[in-house]
Amino acid sequence: MEEVAVENKQVIFKGYIERAPRETDMEVRIGTVEVKTPKGSGAFLVKNLYLSCDPYMRGRMRDYHGSYIPPFVPGQPIQGFGVSKVVASDNPDFKPGDLVSGITGWEEYSLIQKPEQLRRVQQDDIPLSFNLGLLGMPGLTAYAGFYEVCSPKKGDYVFVSAASGAVGQLVGQLAKLHGCYVVGSAGTSQKVAKLDKFSIASASSTIIDYLSITLQMMLITQFDIYLTINRYFPEGIDIYFDNVGGDMLDAALLNMRISGRIAVCGMVSLHSLSDPQGIRNLFNLLTKRIRMQGFLQSDYLHLYPKFLEHVINNYRQGNLVYIEDMNEGLESAPAALAGLFSGKNVGKQVIRVAYE
Amino acid sequence: MEEVAVENKQVIFKGYIERAPRETDMEVRIGTVEVKTPKGSGAFLVKNLYLSCDPYMRGRMRDYHGSYIPPFVPGQPIQGFGVSKVVASDNPDFKPGDLVSGITGWEEYSLIQKPEQLRRVQQDDIPLSFNLGLLGMPGLTAYAGFYEVCSPKKGDYVFVSAASGAVGQLVGQLAKLHGCYVVGSAGTSQKVAKLDKFSIASASSTIIDYLSITLQMMLITQFDIYLTINRYFPEGIDIYFDNVGGDMLDAALLNMRISGRIAVCGMVSLHSLSDPQGIRNLFNLLTKRIRMQGFLQSDYLHLYPKFLEHVINNYRQGNLVYIEDMNEGLESAPAALAGLFSGKNVGKQVIRVAYE
Repeated sequence: MEEVAVENKQVIFKGYIERAPRETDMEVRIGTVEVKTPKGSGAFLVKNLYLSCDPYMRGRMRDYHGSYIPPFVPGQPIQGFGVSKVVASDNPDFKPGDLVSGITGWEEYSLIQKPEQLRRVQQDDIPLSFNLGLLGMPGLTAYAGFYEVCSPKKGDYVFVSAASGAVGQLVGQLAKLHGCYVVGSAGTSQKVAKLDKFSIASASSTIIDYLSITLQMMLITQFDIYLTINRYFPEGIDIYFDNVGGDMLDAALLNMRISGRIAVCGMVSLHSLSDPQGIRNLFNLLTKRIRMQGFLQSDYLHLYPKFLEHVINNYRQGNLVYIEDMNEGLESAPAALAGLFSGKNVGKQVIRVAYE
Repeated sequence: MEEVAVENKQVIFKGYIERAPRETDMEVRIGTVEVKTPKGSGAFLVKNLYLSCDPYMRGRMRDYHGSYIPPFVPGQPIQGFGVSKVVASDNPDFKPGDLVSGITGWEEYSLIQKPEQLRRVQQDDIPLSFNLGLLGMPGLTAYAGFYEVCSPKKGDYVFVSAASGAVGQLVGQLAKLHGCYVVGSAGTSQKVAKLDKFSIASASSTIIDYLSITLQMMLITQFDIYLTINRYFPEGIDIYFDNVGGDMLDAALLNMRISGRIAVCGMVSLHSLSDPQGIRNLFNLLTKRIRMQGFLQSDYLHLYPKFLEHVINNYRQGNLVYIEDMNEGLESAPAALAGLFSGKNVGKQVIRVAYE
């Protein structure tokens, strides 16, 4: 294949939006790519195997340059985490055949010009795609968020929202391993059924349903959510790992115990941008001396080796499971990304672009 | 005066409310008190000299028993911090003539049945009434909130709301002494003028005016507040010491820097209870990794000796000033307490019941 231009299917970002992403905000296009790397560039070309759909990507679809990560470029492929195989390289550290994980493009082949955004990964007994979830950014988010932000103690009462999601499912299991009492909430009964697989006490989806709350504000009141959480936490919550924000956060605040901790993770940002309702129960921070802390996994990259060891050991010992929602083919990517924001995925959303 | 019943003017709590206190929620009544203490009771009788008006007292006027402090009893005198002189005692630790500070009643004479709620104080070069402010609960709130909750560093950009109030005026001065850049906001130009006395850079009251915001929501938008704060903090805020909540908190969130800290103190609770608007900008907690922490000074009582030493030394060296708003006579107390919630007081609100 040396020095040959081949077809390259791509998922193109059409333009900036302010609302939640839709399938039509992206289009699949056939481009071409030269299967070679410019001499002296240090670049390498990869064939993408798996691509990751993550909620933070919505932030990159806004025309806003003040965030911790720049927006996507209209007319160019979506960027995101992926697992890829090197097919040509001008970089001595990456040889053809190497497997890599990190930031790549939503396309069949990507020319990687920032090698520092990827690391080499091994093919072993752990599925390669887990580099996008359990062993990747969502995994480190769960690990750093739980151990570093939540200050957990054995016996703590822990509540996790979006508990079958990419981050939530690991938080729940880590808390369980730590000796905490854990209850998770999820948006559908299908998701709640998955929680049972982790042996996490699962809240009924008929009332604790963060998606319904967003879509049917008038049907499910915050007080209903309060009461349901209260049924599972009659003595209150020590740790709330918040993946959703909005009414669930407000209801959790009412259920917090004295000296409680709230880790603010993920989608709280998204709700707030478009939701005309604000958070009303912050007075609980005062009366209950609660610490509420936002965090990004990128501030905890120094913990990466320790995190990997902990998670891999527990996975191999059968103490952890990890659920993926695997879509087949690059064509399925726009709908999969949009689906995150209406709760379509059950488990970590991944796209298989090519078989290993 | 032994064993004589004397007239005892009292401020009676009429009944529970959900809104901000009004003068008419209390009434001044003439009762009687026996100037003796029951044998074997350990109680003592005090003549009240100064009484304190504090925002937390609004919480005790609600029929809500789940808080950290029980509600007032309708038909009985208001309870609060005071400075008093012992006039009769069955308690070996408190002798007639002793000066005490702690929880007493809003009346001329109070029978103290919980001696553990008061401590003996000295008459020295520091005004006795300062035991209710600079050396009392508001002072410890400022000290613990700033040093323990805000994790201040020299050079930090510090924003304090209600900066001429009982707590805020000390926070601003402590931050200044710590080598921080400090800007305070206050509700009227008269208050802002007082801030200059502390050499705190004061924000213009014409726009940053938390009282106007509450009362004239449509006239002063959150965006105006955002822009004004931004003018004083072009590089953003490291520490926001929040005494007001509401729109000021929301606008401050937009102005926070990465790794910022927000101490949640005082009136955030009160706004939230009646304000239909919630806090909308919490997504900044995530993107900027902000820690937001509620606290109560009562969790830091172990720091009391260290706090007193720090504040008294700095006061004697002329590094600290403390502004009181002194009302004369028990009759003025209901209006003074109600006035806190419309921002009438300039500095710490105190009632002089009797001359020392």
